[in-house]
Amino acid sequence: MNRNLHYFFHPESIAVIGASANPDSLGYKVMKNMMYGGFAGPVMPVNPKYESVSGVLTYAKVEDLPRVADLAVICTPPAMIPGLIQSLGRRGTKAAVVLTAGLEAESTPGGPSFQVLMLDAALKHGIRILGPNCLGLMVPGSGINASFAHTDSLTGSLAFVSQSGAFSTGVLDWAKSSGIGFSCFISLGNSADVNFSDALEYLSEDANTSAILLYIESIKDAPAFMRAATKAAQKKPVIAIKSGRVADAQKAAASHTGALAGSDEVYEAAFRQSGILRVPSIEDLFGAVETLGKAKPLKGNGLAIFSNGGGPGVMATDSLVMNQGRLARFSDATMERLNGVLPAKWSKANPVDIIGDAPPQRYVDTLKVLVDDADTAAILFINAPSAIVPSEVIAEAMLDTARNASKTVFTCWLGRDGVARAKNLFSDVRIPCFDTPEDAVQAFIHMSRYRKIQWFIAGEAEKDDWVEKLDRSRIREIFADVSGEHRDLLTEPEAKAVLAAAGLPVTNTRTASDPETCLAMAESIGYPVVLKIISPDISHKSDVGGVALNLENDEAVKAAAEAMLARVRSIRPDAQITGFSIQQMVKMPSAHELIIGSTRDPVFGPIIMFGHGGTAVEVIRDHSVALPPITRAIAEDMVNQTRVSRLLAGYRDRPKAKMEAIYEAIIRVSQLVLAFPEIAELDVNPLLANDERVTAIDARIRLAVNDG
Amino acid sequence: MNRNLHYFFHPESIAVIGASANPDSLGYKVMKNMMYGGFAGPVMPVNPKYESVSGVLTYAKVEDLPRVADLAVICTPPAMIPGLIQSLGRRGTKAAVVLTAGLEAESTPGGPSFQVLMLDAALKHGIRILGPNCLGLMVPGSGINASFAHTDSLTGSLAFVSQSGAFSTGVLDWAKSSGIGFSCFISLGNSADVNFSDALEYLSEDANTSAILLYIESIKDAPAFMRAATKAAQKKPVIAIKSGRVADAQKAAASHTGALAGSDEVYEAAFRQSGILRVPSIEDLFGAVETLGKAKPLKGNGLAIFSNGGGPGVMATDSLVMNQGRLARFSDATMERLNGVLPAKWSKANPVDIIGDAPPQRYVDTLKVLVDDADTAAILFINAPSAIVPSEVIAEAMLDTARNASKTVFTCWLGRDGVARAKNLFSDVRIPCFDTPEDAVQAFIHMSRYRKIQWFIAGEAEKDDWVEKLDRSRIREIFADVSGEHRDLLTEPEAKAVLAAAGLPVTNTRTASDPETCLAMAESIGYPVVLKIISPDISHKSDVGGVALNLENDEAVKAAAEAMLARVRSIRPDAQITGFSIQQMVKMPSAHELIIGSTRDPVFGPIIMFGHGGTAVEVIRDHSVALPPITRAIAEDMVNQTRVSRLLAGYRDRPKAKMEAIYEAIIRVSQLVLAFPEIAELDVNPLLANDERVTAIDARIRLAVNDG
Repeated sequence: MNRNLHYFFHPESIAVIGASANPDSLGYKVMKNMMYGGFAGPVMPVNPKYESVSGVLTYAKVEDLPRVADLAVICTPPAMIPGLIQSLGRRGTKAAVVLTAGLEAESTPGGPSFQVLMLDAALKHGIRILGPNCLGLMVPGSGINASFAHTDSLTGSLAFVSQSGAFSTGVLDWAKSSGIGFSCFISLGNSADVNFSDALEYLSEDANTSAILLYIESIKDAPAFMRAATKAAQKKPVIAIKSGRVADAQKAAASHTGALAGSDEVYEAAFRQSGILRVPSIEDLFGAVETLGKAKPLKGNGLAIFSNGGGPGVMATDSLVMNQGRLARFSDATMERLNGVLPAKWSKANPVDIIGDAPPQRYVDTLKVLVDDADTAAILFINAPSAIVPSEVIAEAMLDTARNASKTVFTCWLGRDGVARAKNLFSDVRIPCFDTPEDAVQAFIHMSRYRKIQWFIAGEAEKDDWVEKLDRSRIREIFADVSGEHRDLLTEPEAKAVLAAAGLPVTNTRTASDPETCLAMAESIGYPVVLKIISPDISHKSDVGGVALNLENDEAVKAAAEAMLARVRSIRPDAQITGFSIQQMVKMPSAHELIIGSTRDPVFGPIIMFGHGGTAVEVIRDHSVALPPITRAIAEDMVNQTRVSRLLAGYRDRPKAKMEAIYEAIIRVSQLVLAFPEIAELDVNPLLANDERVTAIDARIRLAVNDG
Repeated sequence: MNRNLHYFFHPESIAVIGASANPDSLGYKVMKNMMYGGFAGPVMPVNPKYESVSGVLTYAKVEDLPRVADLAVICTPPAMIPGLIQSLGRRGTKAAVVLTAGLEAESTPGGPSFQVLMLDAALKHGIRILGPNCLGLMVPGSGINASFAHTDSLTGSLAFVSQSGAFSTGVLDWAKSSGIGFSCFISLGNSADVNFSDALEYLSEDANTSAILLYIESIKDAPAFMRAATKAAQKKPVIAIKSGRVADAQKAAASHTGALAGSDEVYEAAFRQSGILRVPSIEDLFGAVETLGKAKPLKGNGLAIFSNGGGPGVMATDSLVMNQGRLARFSDATMERLNGVLPAKWSKANPVDIIGDAPPQRYVDTLKVLVDDADTAAILFINAPSAIVPSEVIAEAMLDTARNASKTVFTCWLGRDGVARAKNLFSDVRIPCFDTPEDAVQAFIHMSRYRKIQWFIAGEAEKDDWVEKLDRSRIREIFADVSGEHRDLLTEPEAKAVLAAAGLPVTNTRTASDPETCLAMAESIGYPVVLKIISPDISHKSDVGGVALNLENDEAVKAAAEAMLARVRSIRPDAQITGFSIQQMVKMPSAHELIIGSTRDPVFGPIIMFGHGGTAVEVIRDHSVALPPITRAIAEDMVNQTRVSRLLAGYRDRPKAKMEAIYEAIIRVSQLVLAFPEIAELDVNPLLANDERVTAIDARIRLAVNDG
């Protein structure tokens, strides 16, 4: 289908249907924008009410058009649109921009919505639809402004695809005022047909587009989106803003992981894993594209900073470290060479203060040394204007060295009018220039993040050999038993059996229907044991006193079982109690409580969560999210994103946890949920981890209800 | 002494000593700046080499000056300066700006530095010195530019006091290019005499100064600084950048709290408690002053957001919540009124999307409703330009309502050229305007933080009645014993006795010199007990196996004591072992491990730390810092700043901790360290806290070594 998208960008003729001479109408604005845009091929207005619009002969209906319109721009009332698409299709039109709003909500009495009828007609004739309810389309290079925006756009090499009309107009206005141009500007509106995936697929092949910018409010077809994004990101930078980071209110969810479904963290993971650089604001969007366009690829992540004064270097360092970046560690050779070119009282460390009295040659010499330093991946030069040497003299001296350096030299020129000439010299040769140390550092941080996500999609992360260990028939058997009893929640012993069949170490666990049977089970497992209640109606057993730890003998087991039964019955008289689970009391000295979970995100499907576990999991809020399949590299990245990873690394007399066992456990859960889509929710909590092993102490699995 | 500062700002005559006709010299630049500045009173150059400089008759020496110079600007070589100050003093000069660098390092052979000699002379004659090694002084309103900056400054009402010359020139350039003016611009240089405290004290009374901006690298006389800052902050906004947030490397420190000495967190606490609004960048500095100058005082912390499109409102909400701000919760009355003025498909919540087709009256109506909402403390209006109603038409319609509102209306006009007229309309009546939702939200966040720190210094936080419970003579006795034995580290039982004498609950603890005595002590305390090694050379007992928990009987105590002795002797053969401590094994179900500590900051003196305790304290890194005296309000604020506060609030079956007991414990420690300045370091870790009480389980106190 994608081949037809071509007609949006390179039509030879355009019809404006609903073009109008009434200055208050959409059709007036669109026709004016089209004529003002400078499109070469014929623009043909269609409207039975007028003989001409914007000075162009107007046709009463589609059938009257003197030639096929490759692209139609439609701003008529909703009810007319399905018929118009039919007519256009019969004439051979292949693409339509529908600006009109309200097609989803309106219909003939009792009939399907006009949107459905429009899509039916489009499908029949192979017409692609952009919109409805969108601001329109601009392809400045072809003179196309098929929009009702209040301004036009300059020609450039950035493609912008937006889901928000309001935001788009702001961006257009700002970009034009700033001299930034676009290869195309696409407002998706309702995305009834053309969506982000289509746009990404087309733009990744578009020679006029050097980078793709997205403003995303929500994604519909996630697998297609991720495929298209990954493909595009391998060819050119894809940078996105996704609004709605903050949910209005915390959702109540039965499982710990369940609460993550639909959360912003899932988008974050999806972007990272598909190679999209996510930024928080419009300023960052254009800042990042500017940097990625001008910068040389990073080969490490150390930043060298140098400046003609101490303060700005320190401010830049603050900003770097607070954004999880790091200073380059200079080699001895670098230090020796710096001592050679700098006065005795230089800062003797990164950031390098070359002292305010520096003559131009000292700037050049310093830059040359830093370019050669092994741990330096990029260099940030900060200039404070001074009466000693004008900034433009410094810029002239450094220009060739900076331009020809094998590493990116980010520059920050403090001030404005007094450093404008210096800045222009550097900008003209495409060296990144910034107004503040913070902005320059942010650009480097974007570069570093971009390097990391590129590594994710470059396939390096895929080289793992974690052979699947799933005992599929055993798991199918357990699920069949559960479904057979019309349950969706597995008992704890069932859940653990599933985990064991997926290759996760679990504690030895048995079930008993009454306190007496508990005794026999406890003896067969061996004391001490843990006793837990089993009820399909109780998610969090400890909340109702449904867990007794460290029971040492028969008496203790019996007493605990009877007391537990009485307590749970009184607290939750509604709950059906099906028995007890008895398991060995695990002795794992110095173990950490972790959680591994999975749930189904409404957009992205299964997600995997790793974090700091235990009963306080929701209060501690320390976890990371990724989309399966999880490779070893992704598992390691997931662990490193959490605060608990610092504890796992060991401290004082507590040894480092066996990290490989943790990564493997995450991967086993990933393999399990991919193989069994019927798993709606899964929580392994706690997963105990120490320096020798990991063990699942408790587990919870809920199956999707299937009434088939 | 401060009265003489007057001569820096309102001199009637100025001498430029070292004024020069050589264009490469500092004296040339300074004299040119002075003459260009437009100062009315005589500017008298002094230099024996020239008859005139910058067209002004030049005097050979200070003695030749035809009249007293109220202010002298000095840029001669270091060696001349002490003599010059003498001469100036004899003539009656009261203030001098010393631009020259190197006075600290240079001296006559074997003599004191020129800086010391200069200060001696200044003290003798009552001359105040700004510098040395500074960029100079500007008082644009009086035409004074006594600096060698590359640019001059506009007149305005902001005072800027800076410790970085390099940064200052950048700020000057940027401010002038942006049309921002100053009441004065002070470069402190080495602060040999005039420092931040002097400047704050003077500027707080200066009628030409509406706000004070500081660029701080380090503070010397902290108590004076805090007094001056608090006094100034009660009169006008004091906003600071403090660079050096990030220490180059983590310091190794013997105690948990000790590592905080000299850290950025102490500055953060000092600023907060003295009413200074700290911001991270120059942009924020001017952004915050702009906002505080234009905004109406906040009476709460809920923000109402409204916009003519969904996207921008969501972006603003993201930014708000990520910066710890919150949306206003609309009352039912507000919702009802909004339903009355908005179309049916409005967002039905805060942020309010009034829909892109809104006519001007709908903007006005919405604004009126939001101004009346009880939980709304301020309003953010975001406009996306549209072809439907031009932004300036909307601005005109809203102008009077926004200006006369009882609450601040922050506005964000997306775009640039297309919204410039709308923005100017609002700017002209001093309504804050921003380019991006993020900047507007940041301004509101600054306001909220400013409101909170104002509350701290307004004295509200002081109304507490925690009567001191110190048993001073008991504590003095213990300290005397320790000093008598030439120790600086207290044993654990001694430290606990001190805490008990300060009113903190501690576990019952005894000491024993050998394993046999341990038995008797254990019996007198009652089983089970905890056994710990006592050694002045071992800070972290658990690291060397020096702690045995939950010993149930005589045998267990004896075995543990003997094994411990052998183990510690083999691991730390260097350590002197003075015995054992035996204490009750505390049974506090559901207790949290907390830490309260204190250390001496080299700048600010005693600091108090609260945080998540236990052996992983350095890895968890979850704490807050404040300066004593700690009031109940500050204690509560300290606890709320930590992540562990969420655990203390209770979750699942774990009850809320007894917060008053925690606050009290923090206050008791504050009282203790204030009363006993000889306490160099103190750690209470862990302090167990549950729903009933708190108890100090372990403690460590180190005294400052006093060889007197």
